[in-house]
Amino acid sequence: MKFKILSELDYTVTLPVTFLLNIRPQTGPQQTVLEEKFTLMPEMPHVAHTDAVTGNRFDQITAQIPGVYHIRYEATVETQVLKLTDQELPEMDVSDFKLDVLSCLYPSRYCQSDRLGNLAMKLFGETGSPLKQARAIVEWISTHIDYVSGSSTSTTSVVDSLVERQGVCRDFAHLGIALCRALNIPARYFTGYAHDLNPPDFHACFETWIGGHWLLWDATGLSSPDSVVHIGTGRDAADVSVCTSFGSLRLDRQSVVCKALSPDYRKLTQEELQSICIAHA
Amino acid sequence: MKFKILSELDYTVTLPVTFLLNIRPQTGPQQTVLEEKFTLMPEMPHVAHTDAVTGNRFDQITAQIPGVYHIRYEATVETQVLKLTDQELPEMDVSDFKLDVLSCLYPSRYCQSDRLGNLAMKLFGETGSPLKQARAIVEWISTHIDYVSGSSTSTTSVVDSLVERQGVCRDFAHLGIALCRALNIPARYFTGYAHDLNPPDFHACFETWIGGHWLLWDATGLSSPDSVVHIGTGRDAADVSVCTSFGSLRLDRQSVVCKALSPDYRKLTQEELQSICIAHA
Amino acid sequence: MKFKILSELDYTVTLPVTFLLNIRPQTGPQQTVLEEKFTLMPEMPHVAHTDAVTGNRFDQITAQIPGVYHIRYEATVETQVLKLTDQELPEMDVSDFKLDVLSCLYPSRYCQSDRLGNLAMKLFGETGSPLKQARAIVEWISTHIDYVSGSSTSTTSVVDSLVERQGVCRDFAHLGIALCRALNIPARYFTGYAHDLNPPDFHACFETWIGGHWLLWDATGLSSPDSVVHIGTGRDAADVSVCTSFGSLRLDRQSVVCKALSPDYRKLTQEELQSICIAHA
Amino acid sequence: MKFKILSELDYTVTLPVTFLLNIRPQTGPQQTVLEEKFTLMPEMPHVAHTDAVTGNRFDQITAQIPGVYHIRYEATVETQVLKLTDQELPEMDVSDFKLDVLSCLYPSRYCQSDRLGNLAMKLFGETGSPLKQARAIVEWISTHIDYVSGSSTSTTSVVDSLVERQGVCRDFAHLGIALCRALNIPARYFTGYAHDLNPPDFHACFETWIGGHWLLWDATGLSSPDSVVHIGTGRDAADVSVCTSFGSLRLDRQSVVCKALSPDYRKLTQEELQSICIAHA
Repeated sequence: MKFKILSELDYTVTLPVTFLLNIRPQTGPQQTVLEEKFTLMPEMPHVAHTDAVTGNRFDQITAQIPGVYHIRYEATVETQVLKLTDQELPEMDVSDFKLDVLSCLYPSRYCQSDRLGNLAMKLFGETGSPLKQARAIVEWISTHIDYVSGSSTSTTSVVDSLVERQGVCRDFAHLGIALCRALNIPARYFTGYAHDLNPPDFHACFETWIGGHWLLWDATGLSSPDSVVHIGTGRDAADVSVCTSFGSLRLDRQSVVCKALSPDYRKLTQEELQSICIAHA
Repeated sequence: MKFKILSELDYTVTLPVTFLLNIRPQTGPQQTVLEEKFTLMPEMPHVAHTDAVTGNRFDQITAQIPGVYHIRYEATVETQVLKLTDQELPEMDVSDFKLDVLSCLYPSRYCQSDRLGNLAMKLFGETGSPLKQARAIVEWISTHIDYVSGSSTSTTSVVDSLVERQGVCRDFAHLGIALCRALNIPARYFTGYAHDLNPPDFHACFETWIGGHWLLWDATGLSSPDSVVHIGTGRDAADVSVCTSFGSLRLDRQSVVCKALSPDYRKLTQEELQSICIAHA
Repeated sequence: MKFKILSELDYTVTLPVTFLLNIRPQTGPQQTVLEEKFTLMPEMPHVAHTDAVTGNRFDQITAQIPGVYHIRYEATVETQVLKLTDQELPEMDVSDFKLDVLSCLYPSRYCQSDRLGNLAMKLFGETGSPLKQARAIVEWISTHIDYVSGSSTSTTSVVDSLVERQGVCRDFAHLGIALCRALNIPARYFTGYAHDLNPPDFHACFETWIGGHWLLWDATGLSSPDSVVHIGTGRDAADVSVCTSFGSLRLDRQSVVCKALSPDYRKLTQEELQSICIAHA
Repeated sequence: MKFKILSELDYTVTLPVTFLLNIRPQTGPQQTVLEEKFTLMPEMPHVAHTDAVTGNRFDQITAQIPGVYHIRYEATVETQVLKLTDQELPEMDVSDFKLDVLSCLYPSRYCQSDRLGNLAMKLFGETGSPLKQARAIVEWISTHIDYVSGSSTSTTSVVDSLVERQGVCRDFAHLGIALCRALNIPARYFTGYAHDLNPPDFHACFETWIGGHWLLWDATGLSSPDSVVHIGTGRDAADVSVCTSFGSLRLDRQSVVCKALSPDYRKLTQEELQSICIAHA
């Protein structure tokens, strides 16, 4: 499916600073960037990085001169997703996982899964297969956590969210990841552009390694997993912030748009997502 | 009802240290100490304090000489409890509370109720009256937290217990207190001797101010609220530790016994506790 | 010394709520309220409480009707302070403390002194007498913590402040309390009106029990300890919030004024505070 | 330099479990495994992984049958280290770093550098070059943190260590990493075998990217950076635990030996380490 995406970001720089933007979609078999245009104003050289393992694409900008920096990125992206039934996702065990998958079981900055073993077992230990557990986790989060804009900060972790029971998409994704890892279901974080997100913003969701696929989940219910253009994949938000600044930087304005170009696209309903899983091709 | 209690404690002192023991039962209309004997070996002067507000009784001991200090306390205590039906506990509002009761709504060291508002409302906001909420909280704790000896330390608070989902009687009591306070139900901590506790130890439970009475609750289910001799009442374990040491002190041995003297005493069952509440006379 | 104080608070109520204001100064030998006027608009009955132990004065208001509630309080207060030299403050030991003083060694919600023993001993273990330690703690806080408006929230505790190294007066006071308690120096929190505070606001400081007096300290350096009218004394901010709300309440506007009436009053300098201590009469 | 290493581990398995051992040294230009022997008793197939990016070597074992599993690993390893003077380590800026180095500035599970910016700037902001800062950080940790066996657990992070001021090698390394990252000095964790460590154990230290080299640091002072055989490199202990178990596993016995084979090897002194840095060849 094709998407048209656009993001605009204005940053104010007061002292020289290097920052790393992660706003360009990944490219790979599952996702093609058909055309893209990245504009930085004032014009200046900067470095584009692509991570060899994840395919994440970063723009590293060093702003020496105080002032406002405008970034504008637009692209047309084609994604390939699989719609899989439960039968197509055979149960696997930790002993089947390769190293890169195993590392998605480790705790990370915002996902202290090493502390959640008891909680996860008490809530989901009897739920059945990893796929059933992942579905139950998504359901649990959407029931037990309130989506409240501005209720968390850049240092909020799942330990906080479990106590305070509120958060934004980033926190919902972190909870999903941490609970899955605590049950030995490999899980990772991703950021993306989501079709018709309301209010418009970058989005964050999570993936789990089940049945030989990275399945996509959005515990907020704000997007449908088949309508998200992937930007970055990582252990948690520490890896794939939209902007990681090594010094002081102020975001003044942000505008994000994402539209499915297929005129008859409609989101999968929560009911449909009970019987079908979305994975990258 | 009458109880025979006995506690023996051996502490090793290496450097001069002052410590505060809180092992003698409170006295008051609800509880009479019929006879008691406190022995400290080696014999030495020490200070007995009784808190004017709570009636808590402390023995302040300053050990100047290195060595082992043996404490032995035995007593016969008569308690007066009320058995109240729901109808005898009229619903009250925060606006009805006096200052000393209101202060039992404040957060404390181990009971960060100020962070639990959302959680408590999501779990128990629709449960009904404060009495129904308190019962549901006790039920929730006993279902969602595992009693595991040694699973917590002296710095463990409810934020930890909610994440790690295990603890001992102290943690169960702290959770009950914090969740009640988050719902504007005044709650406080108490330590005591519990009839036939297995394994024998000091015990910790909590009280809530509902319907004009301090109702007694044990979320661990290890004791029956009508068979606990109160030692100390406070905001949480910070106020009424069995032993608060201002310096280095090592507990080498502890032995605790508590027996109801009435030969036909039997604990109230969990079913009976669904329809009857226990309060101090 | 006499002070003229004034505070105005506007709260918006949307659902019925009870709240507890703590804005009237304590009365006692050390402080006399010469005249005062408390106005609540719309006019309505409310309950005034005075805590028997601390002398803290609370106004308990139950607002049933949605709308804006204006509170205006003005008073003339006379305080009696002692200026004590180090020689007038004999060193005391934990074994000399009474129960109410000992309880100021316990950890509390925002002052987890039970976790700071090592830190306090490493920083101040060799500093000398409790008085020297208290001075060194005030100096350490003022050097190592940045005063940054808005840098902390109502759930911030000393564990956070020690890591993030910034805060407001409340956090500075909590740090002073926790570090003192960790060294067995009894310490408590107080709120007050401070002469010419800039920007004007309620203020928070702390007291330590040294040499038989409650000595006053302000680690922020924003006020002079001899120019603070005491409102509430407690273990930490949990006890004596300006406003403790049992339900939802929004502060819309706040205005605070405090002026020493003596025309030639000047604050004690940091140098003077190296050799003189301020205590309540 | 050549080292002879030996480790023996006994694990008790009660339920089927997969675990990942990370006890074999990395191989690469800086370190050659001349000979090695890995024995698992009872004999059974298991999977060896080598991480393509880090060169970390893992043994993935799935134990189906309850019982005791003995692991014995011995090897002869040759390491190549550089001894660099300050002049050989030119100052670099964040804008010079590649993506894999930049990712060593991100916060991680046990190293919440995102919360330490203020603390790090207050302590080391005026210290000078990154190299001077790294040295000052190592010095600060060794002065302000007590090495106390058993004082931390597998969930202890730098936020805890900064408050409690004690820990083991793992905590010392985490503190070094987090403080460096907070100053934009890329830092990572490594585990290893250290010559003549006393008491014998696996060891953990950290590396910083300065002047185009990964410099080795041991804030505990227990080892000399030129006498450590690298096992695993990662963001923190979450990546390179000696044993990561996906299920229940009990370590019953552990024995570790590491000896420099050069008879005249002596550790670098703390004084020598003031003017010379150790890096991998």
